[in-house]
Amino acid sequence: MSKIDKKYAEYAALFESELHNYINSFHASPSVLFEAMKYSLEAGGKRVRPVLLLAANEMLGGSEESALPFALALEMIHTYSLIHDDLPAMDDDDFRRGNPSNHKKFGEGMAILAGDGLLSLAMELCLANIKDDNSLSATRILFAAAGVSGMVAGQAADLLSEKKQEYSERQLLYIIKNKTSKMIAAPLAMASALNGGKYMAEMKNFGRTLGFLFQVVDDILDVEGEASEMGKTLGKDAQEDKLTSVKYYGLKGAKEYAEKLYNESVSSLSGVANSAYLAKLAEKIYKRTN
Amino acid sequence: MSKIDKKYAEYAALFESELHNYINSFHASPSVLFEAMKYSLEAGGKRVRPVLLLAANEMLGGSEESALPFALALEMIHTYSLIHDDLPAMDDDDFRRGNPSNHKKFGEGMAILAGDGLLSLAMELCLANIKDDNSLSATRILFAAAGVSGMVAGQAADLLSEKKQEYSERQLLYIIKNKTSKMIAAPLAMASALNGGKYMAEMKNFGRTLGFLFQVVDDILDVEGEASEMGKTLGKDAQEDKLTSVKYYGLKGAKEYAEKLYNESVSSLSGVANSAYLAKLAEKIYKRTN
Repeated sequence: MSKIDKKYAEYAALFESELHNYINSFHASPSVLFEAMKYSLEAGGKRVRPVLLLAANEMLGGSEESALPFALALEMIHTYSLIHDDLPAMDDDDFRRGNPSNHKKFGEGMAILAGDGLLSLAMELCLANIKDDNSLSATRILFAAAGVSGMVAGQAADLLSEKKQEYSERQLLYIIKNKTSKMIAAPLAMASALNGGKYMAEMKNFGRTLGFLFQVVDDILDVEGEASEMGKTLGKDAQEDKLTSVKYYGLKGAKEYAEKLYNESVSSLSGVANSAYLAKLAEKIYKRTN
Repeated sequence: MSKIDKKYAEYAALFESELHNYINSFHASPSVLFEAMKYSLEAGGKRVRPVLLLAANEMLGGSEESALPFALALEMIHTYSLIHDDLPAMDDDDFRRGNPSNHKKFGEGMAILAGDGLLSLAMELCLANIKDDNSLSATRILFAAAGVSGMVAGQAADLLSEKKQEYSERQLLYIIKNKTSKMIAAPLAMASALNGGKYMAEMKNFGRTLGFLFQVVDDILDVEGEASEMGKTLGKDAQEDKLTSVKYYGLKGAKEYAEKLYNESVSSLSGVANSAYLAKLAEKIYKRTN
């Protein structure tokens, strides 16, 4: 395991441990609702958003304790979006991370409520941890990225794009920006906010390009990836005639775009002290195979 | 129009005006998502939760300006819960307030997103208005009532109750408390929080009994009400064999329970200065026909 991978594993383990403690502190009912929420929360995934927050927060000199609740909230919001996105009325996916999707396991009604519950719980967790202007600011950044000027708008545009015969580059970039990029950029801006706004402009630029990079690589992997590594149905974008970077630019064009985004993301860190690890994370996201 | 009804109409008009201004300050995309959110937000309803907040806030000496954003957030959360509750996988209702339900008008996928969007927007609106400990406390009360220790848990228990052959009074009271009562009680505790916690214990007691009263009257109206006045499909509870107060106590028993709750709600206001109007609101909820 490389030094970079080891550090990633450490951040991820720290997050998993906090998640585990948090979930087990709950004595909530009805039990099925909590099982449904836990099922998707604990299904793994790469924990990219929490790791980005923890890494940027450490780089900026922040304490683990102050960042961890927001790392949990980030992943809860990401998880709710996956549960709702997999529903038959949305992307209609039967599998997620190699396991039956939430509604396949618990039924559609409970899956809708598990998603609503995770979004609500993310809010409660943030509210419990608003202690000063920094934490209030981090919470505002998170919900601006997740809401109707961010992820929810991106999901809606994505849903509408499936039925369209015509599409433009503007529409493509709108979907990438809102559906994916803002929630990848959020942890970086949140880390800055938690540390008094240090390097805010740089963190925003880095986050934006990294978020686009993440989605473009995802689009490429949907065509070229291995289902066994990805843990989900591949080739679905083309099957559903979704507007993706590969559909718009072609496979070669998407790869060139990814390279450009990777270079931009690294450039945006010039001038940021101790940012070598964040640059390595960008490389990891660029070169990932799952 | 009685004096009480006139005052109610004034609070409701103040709320509608604020809602109208807020909605029109938005320039958001995709437009269909916003149409779906607006459709249900503007569909009317009695605006009970906002009126309770505005009335209690005025009684406690608070300013309209400080309470109005929270009144909007309350109604957004209530509206999101109705949209998701009407979905085929949940209550499967084709009509709401005399109009096609959200998913009948915009499709299931967009209705799920409209609900997610309203919940997110409620949070953003509260976050924008957290300015001191009072407003932070009011926000925490709202999301505690709406989330997995409140409304979402109640919805899940209600969903699970449909399939059960056996049921207990404990289950019935759990559903009423969480699904309905907490979101009726929230505005009263929020009003207290916004005004430094004044009469908090009394507002909580009044809110709890009023919330139960609201649901038991709803159960009675589902049997005895007029569809034209209610604006929704009636008799559905019995048809779906739902666990309601009428099913458990019988119609006569439910009416006796409602009377008891009404009396308790009024008693809990003894000692609260200027609470005559809140008592009248309880009477209005008790005697309502729609």
